[in-house]
Amino acid sequence: MKACKKAILPLGFKANAVSCGIKKSGRPDLALFYSDIPAKAACVFTANKLQAAPIIIDKRHLKSGKEFRAIIVNSGNANAFTGNAGITDADRIMQSLSAGLAVKKEKILVGSTGIIGKRLEVPKIKNALHGLINGLSRQGIDKAKKAIMTTDTFVKEAGAEFNIGREKVTVSGIAKGAGMIAPNMATMLAFIFTDADITQGALSRALKSAVDSSFNCITVDGCMSTNDSVMLLANAAAGNSPIDKGKNFNLFFSALRMVCLELAKLIVKDAEGATKFIQIKVSRAKTFVEAKKAALAVANSNLFKAAMFGEDPNFGRIAAAIGACGIDIKEKCLKIKLGPLNKKDINIDVSLGMGNACAAVYTSDLTPEYIKINAEYS
Amino acid sequence: MKACKKAILPLGFKANAVSCGIKKSGRPDLALFYSDIPAKAACVFTANKLQAAPIIIDKRHLKSGKEFRAIIVNSGNANAFTGNAGITDADRIMQSLSAGLAVKKEKILVGSTGIIGKRLEVPKIKNALHGLINGLSRQGIDKAKKAIMTTDTFVKEAGAEFNIGREKVTVSGIAKGAGMIAPNMATMLAFIFTDADITQGALSRALKSAVDSSFNCITVDGCMSTNDSVMLLANAAAGNSPIDKGKNFNLFFSALRMVCLELAKLIVKDAEGATKFIQIKVSRAKTFVEAKKAALAVANSNLFKAAMFGEDPNFGRIAAAIGACGIDIKEKCLKIKLGPLNKKDINIDVSLGMGNACAAVYTSDLTPEYIKINAEYS
Repeated sequence: MKACKKAILPLGFKANAVSCGIKKSGRPDLALFYSDIPAKAACVFTANKLQAAPIIIDKRHLKSGKEFRAIIVNSGNANAFTGNAGITDADRIMQSLSAGLAVKKEKILVGSTGIIGKRLEVPKIKNALHGLINGLSRQGIDKAKKAIMTTDTFVKEAGAEFNIGREKVTVSGIAKGAGMIAPNMATMLAFIFTDADITQGALSRALKSAVDSSFNCITVDGCMSTNDSVMLLANAAAGNSPIDKGKNFNLFFSALRMVCLELAKLIVKDAEGATKFIQIKVSRAKTFVEAKKAALAVANSNLFKAAMFGEDPNFGRIAAAIGACGIDIKEKCLKIKLGPLNKKDINIDVSLGMGNACAAVYTSDLTPEYIKINAEYS
Repeated sequence: MKACKKAILPLGFKANAVSCGIKKSGRPDLALFYSDIPAKAACVFTANKLQAAPIIIDKRHLKSGKEFRAIIVNSGNANAFTGNAGITDADRIMQSLSAGLAVKKEKILVGSTGIIGKRLEVPKIKNALHGLINGLSRQGIDKAKKAIMTTDTFVKEAGAEFNIGREKVTVSGIAKGAGMIAPNMATMLAFIFTDADITQGALSRALKSAVDSSFNCITVDGCMSTNDSVMLLANAAAGNSPIDKGKNFNLFFSALRMVCLELAKLIVKDAEGATKFIQIKVSRAKTFVEAKKAALAVANSNLFKAAMFGEDPNFGRIAAAIGACGIDIKEKCLKIKLGPLNKKDINIDVSLGMGNACAAVYTSDLTPEYIKINAEYS
């Protein structure tokens, strides 16, 4: 297994991005990912009851088809809380793209991120499609990873490679997200591509499990978005013997999880206004679920996060957050250890002394800058 | 029914406060409340699993006795997360106070607020008891209401009067709390006194119900403290015909609820660093519980609270918070109305269009000042 800092598109994939005019800044805001050959897809979406139009459409397409060829993503507008009009808007874009690519509409997925509650400017996007398609290339990922950004201050990418027999298999991903990040994925989008030949069952299983211990273990502000999506395309171009279970599945899963965890950590590192990257590890819990619950309670405590910003070893706030999270604890068994606070990376170790399960959660500090960014967003 | 802005101690009660040296600032930090005659007590405590030593002791005393004479309160140190040593510390203070007042230890209640995880300085408190007792007077409430403050910037007091027959009955309360405020009461203490003659059952019932729709409907930062307590003493000095149910109970309950709600609102108005007082009303919910859940989800959303600070009508964040809170909603039925944001008092009205229940919750905005206060607390 080899980890790569950069996302390099696996065999058979192309990408591109342009500025279509949704972002007032004129920065790139429309990205396209394309597979030369049909790819299997696995997706994990937000648990928010208000689901954005793109997610509603994606779920339809995933239900009706098994082969996918493209993903189109716009930033600057989430097309969320836009009702039936929003679904029609997204559908019109998919129709034009379908014609331009000569690919059935049902084989395309869509993602949106940005402000909630505003209609998409469909003509701007449609006008940009011709150039977007014409410029597709394997290097286009470098444009695409910038075009999906909103308040992000740096691009998020990660990759991994491994061999099955003689065949090299690549897993590469990019992500965006810098606020409204909470377990169950908040405002984040991740697009992951692999040339692995893998069964649909194994692909879906691997993604769900990888997301559970990566994107679902990060929190910036406890807010869950209407648009979160992790999309994974697998086009089998590597020509490996098909992955289903056993050793080869484990190899694929390890690579996928490594990419997901790296992207998740990058999102936290870019948390709006953050000055610290904090790992909260809760051990000796009765179950993984209780360990994660306790870790998230600390990670979502504003008082704790403000104390981390101030480098204040206020362990009472950690204890209070755990005491309030609803799991059974005993004061005399609870042990809290804070690493040095004057560093950029902070480690908090909590032992509940109740069992043998553990979980790690990643978060950032809460800073005046976070509020400035979010007070002036729309 | 007459509402009073000031807390005036009802018949038979006295209070006093001194500076015993727990607060480095030298400000008053030790308060005593005393009833000349035995009083009934009703208390509501934090739901945090880590309960501070004073709460553990109070629960013991409430279990063993039916008559109470005094409440001692220190600010500056919460005596929480201090294990058995903390209980012993509090007990030693109660013993000295018991001797000084010539009142059984079990007839005294205790409250503490301040930093978590540090031992109480018992000698300082014991040395101050003589002066504290000697200075007891009906006007002492004016000192006591200041002595219970921590990061509070103003005193919180409220009162109400009503008649039962010819007898005037008074309910008066003071409170402290300015951060770590969440439903189920976070770091807040409230002490309420009445000269009503009322049965124990009616007293407990009235307090529980009044707290549910007042102190449990406010949130500043979603953090729940280890020390929250609302204590109510009733000494029957008004000489009214005893209250149990019916019209007289309703009169008493209305007065008590008015005092609780006023104190709760004052706590939110003094929220650490806040510039806005926000009422979130959720109507047309299926049940009161769902309405309150939705209102609290909005009230605890950092993104929403930061937007309020910036006077940004970002209604998408309200929708997203409600969508993520776990109750069943329909996008097309959801209506959100924001009052003018450039005022100090802001009203948010949400209609879920799912039923006929409603709930109101009170909160503040999230500001850079909140973080500064909480980054440098300990």
